[in-house]
Amino acid sequence: MKYAFGIDVGGTSVKLGLVSTDGELLDKWEIPTRTEDGGKNVLPDIASAVKAKIKEKGIEGDVIGAGIGLPGPVDEDGVIRKAVNLHWERTFNVAEELSELLDGMKVRAGNDANVAALGEFWQGAGKDYGDMVMVTLGTGVGGGIIHNGKIMAGVTGAGGEIGHLCIMPDEKIKCNCGNSGCLEQYASATGMVRLTKEELEASDEESELRHMEITAKNTWDAVKHGDALAIRVAEKFGFYLGWGLSIIAGVVNPEVFVLGGGVSKCGDILLPFVERHFEEHAFHACRDAKIVRATLGNNAGIMGAARLAVDD
Amino acid sequence: MKYAFGIDVGGTSVKLGLVSTDGELLDKWEIPTRTEDGGKNVLPDIASAVKAKIKEKGIEGDVIGAGIGLPGPVDEDGVIRKAVNLHWERTFNVAEELSELLDGMKVRAGNDANVAALGEFWQGAGKDYGDMVMVTLGTGVGGGIIHNGKIMAGVTGAGGEIGHLCIMPDEKIKCNCGNSGCLEQYASATGMVRLTKEELEASDEESELRHMEITAKNTWDAVKHGDALAIRVAEKFGFYLGWGLSIIAGVVNPEVFVLGGGVSKCGDILLPFVERHFEEHAFHACRDAKIVRATLGNNAGIMGAARLAVDD
Repeated sequence: MKYAFGIDVGGTSVKLGLVSTDGELLDKWEIPTRTEDGGKNVLPDIASAVKAKIKEKGIEGDVIGAGIGLPGPVDEDGVIRKAVNLHWERTFNVAEELSELLDGMKVRAGNDANVAALGEFWQGAGKDYGDMVMVTLGTGVGGGIIHNGKIMAGVTGAGGEIGHLCIMPDEKIKCNCGNSGCLEQYASATGMVRLTKEELEASDEESELRHMEITAKNTWDAVKHGDALAIRVAEKFGFYLGWGLSIIAGVVNPEVFVLGGGVSKCGDILLPFVERHFEEHAFHACRDAKIVRATLGNNAGIMGAARLAVDD
Repeated sequence: MKYAFGIDVGGTSVKLGLVSTDGELLDKWEIPTRTEDGGKNVLPDIASAVKAKIKEKGIEGDVIGAGIGLPGPVDEDGVIRKAVNLHWERTFNVAEELSELLDGMKVRAGNDANVAALGEFWQGAGKDYGDMVMVTLGTGVGGGIIHNGKIMAGVTGAGGEIGHLCIMPDEKIKCNCGNSGCLEQYASATGMVRLTKEELEASDEESELRHMEITAKNTWDAVKHGDALAIRVAEKFGFYLGWGLSIIAGVVNPEVFVLGGGVSKCGDILLPFVERHFEEHAFHACRDAKIVRATLGNNAGIMGAARLAVDD
């Protein structure tokens, strides 16, 4: 058996996985992300962890390479421009640096959202489809486009940055990115909280949401209980997301959209709200795209990173 | 020297070109598109024209293939679903049928807007760039995405159908496609006429446009003359187009946008109106994309079609 390492770097911890080249996750563990001193320990720590695992498993000659997903824009050559969460301020080739630390092992690098998309495409919800767009609905909205089985990273590594598509140019509230009207201001967990608060303030209508903390999860739970106000919020959320997906469909015409991230954990109840508005706004030739939920959860990043190394 | 034929099929005429494999257009001619009888003569007429040219030039052994651009969605295998303008109602493999008529010559097929994009990428305004998006501003808005030097056709051949991105979901007027709020309702020649009429009706302000036929060309001419009302129209046109391009940039993150079609013939005066709004709405990592005008004019389709055959 041949192996690849999948490495998913976050601001708090690094997830590592040992994956067979045919896509089985064999081992999984985490190390802390040491961001102090400009994050200079992050890559050496990863290299040590990988080397230790190779020794532990006695697989020296059988590792074909490693892939690494990073929280920042990474171009197709493996160059990262900046990774705020890792305290990295410089532009450098991550793949090359990690390869040197691993004594020349083949290393491929990508943006974390793109890499997660590749994981879902390889072994998750996108497995049975052709071109795919993954949409990660968390605090913000991330995305990744898979075309002909590969990540479409874009010329500056910002391909699939769909959370920052400006859909509402008249919006007054600023997005974290500095613009206004970005998709993630409406179609993320944060956006759902905002839409819920707006709906609660618009009337005195009774709702179970008046008696609890406002979170995306609580709103979806209220939708499941048939709460009328919560259902209106879900409808608005579905409008923004479905409309946004219709625009993406008109650009890249994928076969499937895979919805991942925390918000997607509410279950399949999410889908009809999104599908309705997608179908209403999509160009007829793009309207058959499927919308499904991700299946790999937190392992998508590890799996996609391993795939980067395997498929090269 | 080796040769390829580039064939650009329109509803009235078919443009044909003899192109060297290194990208020089050596000969160019047209034949009528006979759409009667369900358009059954279209491909045989093209095959006759190609065979006659091969004989005329005495290049029997030196033709590596032919490419054909068609007014309808064509998938990556060369299957067309429907081409209303050619009176074709059936789904069939155009590339295979034309190849048979040409005694087995290699034939590749694509959508006309995508093929024109490939032409500009190969020998026109996109020549010095990587990933490119072409936007054709005519009666409607067409588009084509070039990624890694190839057309991104999408799963149903509707990749780059950016004229039908729904940007204004509250629009009441219907687009030809059946939806409402499509980009081409604002950012085409037709859209410019509409914006001009709206601006004229909104006030009694004097403008040279009150004394002539309302066309996109006349409005751009008035902009060049410093007509205040026309400049406001151009600003609105620039808003819709620049904002629309910012959304596309957030999806595929190209290095350059190439603007072609009739509206782009107004000259470089178009560009600042578009750039301003593009930069305002684009995500920072995608904001460096260049916006330039097409250079091949009506030859883009021929050149791109020839490229389909050369690059394969």
